[in-house]
Amino acid sequence: MNAVDLIVKKRDGERLTREEIGYMVMGYTDGDIPDYQMSAFLMAIFFSGMDDVETADLTEVMRDSGDVMDLSGIKGIKVDKHSTGGVGDKTTLIVAPLAASCGVPVAKMSGRGLGFTGGTVDKLESIPGFRVSMERDEFIRQVNDTGIAVIGQTGHIAPADKKIYALRDVTGTVENLSLITSSIMSKKLAAGSDAILLDVKCGSGAFMKTEEDAVRLAEMMVRIGNMRGRKTVAAITDMEQPLGRAVGNALEVKEAIDVLKGRGPDDITELSLKLAGMMIYLGGMAEDEAEGGRKAAQALQSGRGLAKFAEFVEMQGGDPAVTEDPGILPRSDVVMELKAERDGYVSAIDAMRIGLASQHTGAGRERKDEAIDLSAGLYLYRKTGDPVKKGDVICSLYGNNVKKVKKALEEAGNAVKISEEKKEPGKLIKRIIT
Amino acid sequence: MNAVDLIVKKRDGERLTREEIGYMVMGYTDGDIPDYQMSAFLMAIFFSGMDDVETADLTEVMRDSGDVMDLSGIKGIKVDKHSTGGVGDKTTLIVAPLAASCGVPVAKMSGRGLGFTGGTVDKLESIPGFRVSMERDEFIRQVNDTGIAVIGQTGHIAPADKKIYALRDVTGTVENLSLITSSIMSKKLAAGSDAILLDVKCGSGAFMKTEEDAVRLAEMMVRIGNMRGRKTVAAITDMEQPLGRAVGNALEVKEAIDVLKGRGPDDITELSLKLAGMMIYLGGMAEDEAEGGRKAAQALQSGRGLAKFAEFVEMQGGDPAVTEDPGILPRSDVVMELKAERDGYVSAIDAMRIGLASQHTGAGRERKDEAIDLSAGLYLYRKTGDPVKKGDVICSLYGNNVKKVKKALEEAGNAVKISEEKKEPGKLIKRIIT
Repeated sequence: MNAVDLIVKKRDGERLTREEIGYMVMGYTDGDIPDYQMSAFLMAIFFSGMDDVETADLTEVMRDSGDVMDLSGIKGIKVDKHSTGGVGDKTTLIVAPLAASCGVPVAKMSGRGLGFTGGTVDKLESIPGFRVSMERDEFIRQVNDTGIAVIGQTGHIAPADKKIYALRDVTGTVENLSLITSSIMSKKLAAGSDAILLDVKCGSGAFMKTEEDAVRLAEMMVRIGNMRGRKTVAAITDMEQPLGRAVGNALEVKEAIDVLKGRGPDDITELSLKLAGMMIYLGGMAEDEAEGGRKAAQALQSGRGLAKFAEFVEMQGGDPAVTEDPGILPRSDVVMELKAERDGYVSAIDAMRIGLASQHTGAGRERKDEAIDLSAGLYLYRKTGDPVKKGDVICSLYGNNVKKVKKALEEAGNAVKISEEKKEPGKLIKRIIT
Repeated sequence: MNAVDLIVKKRDGERLTREEIGYMVMGYTDGDIPDYQMSAFLMAIFFSGMDDVETADLTEVMRDSGDVMDLSGIKGIKVDKHSTGGVGDKTTLIVAPLAASCGVPVAKMSGRGLGFTGGTVDKLESIPGFRVSMERDEFIRQVNDTGIAVIGQTGHIAPADKKIYALRDVTGTVENLSLITSSIMSKKLAAGSDAILLDVKCGSGAFMKTEEDAVRLAEMMVRIGNMRGRKTVAAITDMEQPLGRAVGNALEVKEAIDVLKGRGPDDITELSLKLAGMMIYLGGMAEDEAEGGRKAAQALQSGRGLAKFAEFVEMQGGDPAVTEDPGILPRSDVVMELKAERDGYVSAIDAMRIGLASQHTGAGRERKDEAIDLSAGLYLYRKTGDPVKKGDVICSLYGNNVKKVKKALEEAGNAVKISEEKKEPGKLIKRIIT
């Protein structure tokens, strides 16, 4: 076996065996196969594609390149949740305590974000005292005791994916379904859960711009997950405009708490209940998704979800008073407002541009080693379809650097479109793929 | 402009401008663009292709990456000849003096071979005293004085092609028409001739296995040459079996001299006259190829071609007595014979395997810095279509290392097929592309 022959084999449209895929992936991870052969191989995959068996093999080879979590010490059906990423997506902060309060053990490993805002782990760290690192035994004990724990992702999870993703990023080989699927699913398989809930975003603020592309990716991920013995379900959801009103780390924690109190924005509440219902079903605590949804709604209305959130925060060293007094979250010194320039209806709030605005405020990282401003971000007073009068505040922008917030204000201005005709936003939950 | 965007642009099937192609090629040659981006770019070209304008631009960018010869000091229309490479192809040694003796100035820069045998320069060096390096002024003076000079290729000709070719070789991106064309034609354009004669081989011993592929390559090279103001003509010729009977450096020099004496094998004589006729026509010394062919035949029959060869050898320090006494060429100590195992007809002499056998004798290089055995090689007493009796010698193998020659003998045995039915060889000159 040698690298050139395998590049040519894939280039010429032939199927690769698991052994051949392993030879390339592990050879590259171990440094025996150079970057230039791997990038040619990835481009050959981009064009020739991989079938499901190859994709599943690639996924498992990457999973096995590092540590695979053993969650067998946790009672019950462990369900992992993954979002392909969007702007204002704080559903994990809501869905996890709702599901946990309904008896589904949530043992979540979460990444830090690179992009518009931080990841779940960054958001949680905006709660004073919250810590995301703990030993494996402590992690498992906490899930068994309180039903929920969230830790930062370790460097030993799927190192092959890490190295290959960095190469894809600089060689124009990101946008391939099999490569995206294997990248996401290798980490999910390594994370050790029994079932996987995927939230695949589509629209301007998402990696997949069209519903069609999102469906194709979701279908492949669901197939690969199920082929590897994990019950996998995906929701295709809208990311034309940001989810909810808050974008930024502390701002999103506050909004998540609002949702758990039953007074959050409609869209994020609706999606959170839907995802929580799916998670409760996948975790074996409901007969079907509908029953799961009803249980999630009860957990929300009764305040059990909020109580579980407070318990979880306290268990991980955070101040549970945050649920009653969001004022303890970090706050910004600089606030600027984006105002409507004319009367009409908000016809679009481009999620991608709002994400960039958020990043400009300091809420997101541009480079991996950058610190982020947990207090920074923005808040949308209007969403698509809402009427506005000239001078109304559409959006407030927060941060600690006048220049940065000003740049963010400008970008937010580009994101918002006002028209004379009322335009309804796209459907939030577009499809469920099982 | 950045490399990732250009990779993606080509990946997505868009045309690249000359500036964009220049950015990638020169960035890579200068070391600013890393191997892994260039290999992804090459694979994207492999799949998305390049049109003629892009291919011509790529060709010129690579030409301009190094020295471009100025042959304006040479009187007349300078015609360069290039063969895509085959086994036993010593036509340059015959065609160049024939054309020169008919008034076409031959100012040839030639490479050393990597593969089955040496290149033209290696073959010439088997003549005692022959030297292939000379100053530019001396080179031009010699062409003006005697009508012919051959020098080794300098390292400054198309360095971009050199670096890119080495990368293609290890990344499965060799077999693309635009990349092959630009690699060959950039060097031809840099060599400074006014017209270009291409001999595109097809068959088992050639890079292009089928006539169809060879025609497609030839058509593209002819188009690119003509687009860049060089009258370019290509012959598609057979390389199923070796050309002539001799394979190896000194052995091929001897056969070339035999052809110039009118007593060489039919196939190599026929092809040499055809190519010389085309060269005489391209060089403006005949109204058409037919007249060129007649002039070439006259030069052969009259001995003017042989005389020109002797003059040329002498001018470059070689011993012209070689034309009368091939015994002064290097000779081997070890000779082995391949004999027919049964009666019948030779139905195939696989050129690729004969090439490997030649390499095994020591006549070819496996690595760039290897010395080659100028005396080594093989001689075919039978060609496809010839009758044989059991025990007849089909092939003699020459070298200076028993083990190597034995290995070559084995490979030669694999090359030769004997059948009961007589099988005619394929047509030698298949098509002319103008």
